[in-house]
Amino acid sequence: MKRKGAACCAPLLRTRLGRDDAEALASAFKAIADSGRLRLLSFIAGQPGAEACVCHLVQPLGLAQPTVSHHLKVLTEAGLLARERRGTWMFYRLVPERVEALRQALALPSEKPAAKKSA
Amino acid sequence: MKRKGAACCAPLLRTRLGRDDAEALASAFKAIADSGRLRLLSFIAGQPGAEACVCHLVQPLGLAQPTVSHHLKVLTEAGLLARERRGTWMFYRLVPERVEALRQALALPSEKPAAKKSA
Repeated sequence: MKRKGAACCAPLLRTRLGRDDAEALASAFKAIADSGRLRLLSFIAGQPGAEACVCHLVQPLGLAQPTVSHHLKVLTEAGLLARERRGTWMFYRLVPERVEALRQALALPSEKPAAKKSA
Repeated sequence: MKRKGAACCAPLLRTRLGRDDAEALASAFKAIADSGRLRLLSFIAGQPGAEACVCHLVQPLGLAQPTVSHHLKVLTEAGLLARERRGTWMFYRLVPERVEALRQALALPSEKPAAKKSA
């Protein structure tokens, strides 16, 4: 099995990506390479506290309930959503650190982390 | 057919992503959701001028030539690489603007583009 939601994400364009890092990163991008999952992430990010009850995720996106369940599972395994049971319902929350890690993996080679003066 | 390398990338987490924007963005992420393609991008980004002759792309990555050709096609169609024929050989160059567009699509909701004073 590939690592999921685990160590990731090597800066793709700043270092020469090895095989393992490439696998981990590809696995992370696969999780968001689906329009249904992107719409779910987008919807959840827009809710108060960037979290939503699963009971509110089916109707607004017009996806079938099993499809939503599958997408939520993939996004959770990828570390992009965290889930918590409250009473009857499961709640899903965006994990901003994980999104940011993916975003940083796409940093361009020329972007240095703020200009440093030497000595 | 999905739009490829075309208008993209809506800010996933800052606005509620519509169906078309989600399709375009998913299509772009699909292009990089492959470890071979990520390694190719990474290798090309590390070359002088972030470009490489196709004749130098097979050996270092240990991928079969047809696999490399396929990956280059996908990355070019996705707008992440630009290609140019020079004599016998095709050269591939990273398109940083396109990578940056993908990166910006992952910007977190809380990040505002620098504080603006109202009026």
